[in-house]
Amino acid sequence: MTICALATAPGGALGIIRISGPRTLEILSHIFSKDLKAAAPNTIHYGHIVEYDAVLQHQVPLDEVLVSVFRAPHSYTGEDAAEISCHGSRYILNKVLELLVKNGCRMANPGEYTQRAFLNGKMDLSQAEAVADLIASSNKATHQIAISQLRGHFSSELSRLREQLLKLTSLLELELDFSDHEDLEFADRSELLDIANKINNQITALAHSFETGKTLKEGFPVAIVGRTNVGKSTLLNKLLRDDRAIVSPVHGTTRDTIEDTIDINGVTFRFIDTAGIRQTTDEVEQIGINRTYTAIGKARIVLWIVDAEPTTEYIQEMLERCKDKSLIIIRNKIDIQAMSDTFSISNSRLKDFPTVEISAKQGTNIEKLEQAIFASANISELSEQCIIVTSARQYHSLVSAHNNLSRVLSGLESGLSGDIVSEDLRLVLDDLADITGQGRILTSEVLENIFTHFCVGK
Amino acid sequence: MTICALATAPGGALGIIRISGPRTLEILSHIFSKDLKAAAPNTIHYGHIVEYDAVLQHQVPLDEVLVSVFRAPHSYTGEDAAEISCHGSRYILNKVLELLVKNGCRMANPGEYTQRAFLNGKMDLSQAEAVADLIASSNKATHQIAISQLRGHFSSELSRLREQLLKLTSLLELELDFSDHEDLEFADRSELLDIANKINNQITALAHSFETGKTLKEGFPVAIVGRTNVGKSTLLNKLLRDDRAIVSPVHGTTRDTIEDTIDINGVTFRFIDTAGIRQTTDEVEQIGINRTYTAIGKARIVLWIVDAEPTTEYIQEMLERCKDKSLIIIRNKIDIQAMSDTFSISNSRLKDFPTVEISAKQGTNIEKLEQAIFASANISELSEQCIIVTSARQYHSLVSAHNNLSRVLSGLESGLSGDIVSEDLRLVLDDLADITGQGRILTSEVLENIFTHFCVGK
Repeated sequence: MTICALATAPGGALGIIRISGPRTLEILSHIFSKDLKAAAPNTIHYGHIVEYDAVLQHQVPLDEVLVSVFRAPHSYTGEDAAEISCHGSRYILNKVLELLVKNGCRMANPGEYTQRAFLNGKMDLSQAEAVADLIASSNKATHQIAISQLRGHFSSELSRLREQLLKLTSLLELELDFSDHEDLEFADRSELLDIANKINNQITALAHSFETGKTLKEGFPVAIVGRTNVGKSTLLNKLLRDDRAIVSPVHGTTRDTIEDTIDINGVTFRFIDTAGIRQTTDEVEQIGINRTYTAIGKARIVLWIVDAEPTTEYIQEMLERCKDKSLIIIRNKIDIQAMSDTFSISNSRLKDFPTVEISAKQGTNIEKLEQAIFASANISELSEQCIIVTSARQYHSLVSAHNNLSRVLSGLESGLSGDIVSEDLRLVLDDLADITGQGRILTSEVLENIFTHFCVGK
Repeated sequence: MTICALATAPGGALGIIRISGPRTLEILSHIFSKDLKAAAPNTIHYGHIVEYDAVLQHQVPLDEVLVSVFRAPHSYTGEDAAEISCHGSRYILNKVLELLVKNGCRMANPGEYTQRAFLNGKMDLSQAEAVADLIASSNKATHQIAISQLRGHFSSELSRLREQLLKLTSLLELELDFSDHEDLEFADRSELLDIANKINNQITALAHSFETGKTLKEGFPVAIVGRTNVGKSTLLNKLLRDDRAIVSPVHGTTRDTIEDTIDINGVTFRFIDTAGIRQTTDEVEQIGINRTYTAIGKARIVLWIVDAEPTTEYIQEMLERCKDKSLIIIRNKIDIQAMSDTFSISNSRLKDFPTVEISAKQGTNIEKLEQAIFASANISELSEQCIIVTSARQYHSLVSAHNNLSRVLSGLESGLSGDIVSEDLRLVLDDLADITGQGRILTSEVLENIFTHFCVGK
């Protein structure tokens, strides 16, 4: 079936309509002023989209367009395909789609072009998922992960793992062949265990990267906490100062928790300004303070602002609440308060935490603070080939692979028969194959789940 | 200077970046994985946009793209040009533009591509203005006018007028040559007057079409008026019933005048529901009724709904208020009220107005009413070559041409010397030349005024 869709957002100077399928050029010939049935691949053709006018009883031009012609298998989908570059009027774009449908096209489903590219072997499933990630990426980090995955770096990593698993399988078979030589078995198994352990470590590392991938997508949560009037909102406003992406930088009093994001070194951080913490008997204020504690609970990084030496009790409480967080201590108001040595000495429990001295009001050391925040995120410099799992589907396959491989490991350790261990090994291979979709028969439900999250036209 | 801009709206599956200017292919070669400097015109090239990474110290891929190459003079602008079809992520699109600017491009001004197309003789000014109209067109009528103008039908009409004006000029010169033969003059002048009158009629008709053009762009204003509870809002809702373009179909009581549009036969009508008219001493209600009268004043078509025979006074008042409008009388509630013959007989003053009997509640005869509305708009079937002026700039030139030509006419009539008449004729030619911009030196201010209304990327 030949499909068509608008591939650009409506409202620009240009609008691109994509067509893909065996009848592409034949259908186009009915609505285009030139016959493109014999057009060479990768060529561009100027002409008119024409429409039959029932009143005038002849064809009238609907738009002056450029048509790009692609030929199977050298197209995005691997099929014959074309792109019509129209003037970006909704009237024209709707009309052209209407004409295409009248002449035999079907409107494409979300992600159907990429789905066809996958089905025609132009890319594997992990690359297909990267296409959606690439379009959605809004900063350097998520972009780099998506383009790396689109270029097949994750797929290569998986095929390396697959080779190791196949090696393990063949060693197991070797063991079976020599199973009458009882003395051979032990030596073989320790080598097998070594290999299986290595693979399991790699799979576990990949599964763990999903947490980072998710956080990179959503932005690292950073809570800004401290006593009332310590300068939390002032700091938030300073941190957001240069970021043009901010739609609504909220000024003024903190009534609720306020969230906004900035990018540091291409990574998004989501800042949560909170109500000031203090001892109170006021019930309403206590609700605000409880929200602050909730914000700390959700954060991965906590910026704890102080403008005076905190009490032992306060330190005790904060360290308790931040024990699994990256804590940064911020000494604010250095413009009006001289740093006293007593600060670091008397509170030895705070010694090991990164400490930044700033003036939020005057903007002093804000960049230094940003770098401290970035360092606390503990993202190793994202390399060109950075492999970070961002898809829940892929993550679940990795977890399943890990579980099956754990059974392989305990089977090897407990001296289980090679036949049975091989069964589990095959499951691990299947789990990894599910990620790329290669060599696996996927149900239409699985495919639908993947591609419905795409936009139409991709 | 080589320019670049995003030509599509952000947010789609694809984003197109346009480059135009002499250095297009050289600049591209710095950021594209292939050297396109020798690329054939109208060809498409798959590759990567690459960026130098200062940390990794080598080029890293930013996106997988298709680049379309155009060669001067066979491009939209008439210059060397290219289009990069990227994944539609804002991050990518901004990065690619940033790279282009880093390598020597300048960000394009609104309409700069079309301005270059004009300056390079690819189209005249009236066609350039049609490009903006075409992108903005939202219904068949405005689309047809724009595409006709883009295809040069208005330009041809102007060049026909120009030919006739030149003929007039040469006849005047002939008259000057024979000016010693006093008896010849009278005969010549009557022929000249004939030609000048004909030209003037054509120019006047074109200038008049501006009113229609404006109305077609904004939608024909139609007021729905009548006594309270006669079914005005019910009718409005019925008229809007099938129109998916409606964003906020307002139901319920009419507190204010409510406006919404529908397309009938490809023409947009803007309906204004109003407060019911009745005698009242209530001041607030009177304000609403006054607004109804204002709405009638602004309307070109008035739908007057009655559900009973109107009084002589009421008829008198309505005819007074609608005297320069197209009035349609609507007899509503035919589902519950039998048509009484007395209606048309006793009110002979309403006889000549189109009358439609409907049931707004049951939707009876709504289509019939729509066709009556369309007929009242008095738009002669928009032909393929329909020439309707939609630009205020062109309208002012036509008015100026008309004024100068009127001076030519009175000069010819009053026996003014051919030299002086020729002067005015030249002004008429200049006025028409201003519309297409051909053979005229236009100030940058004039050009700026035209193209600042364009979107960036066109």
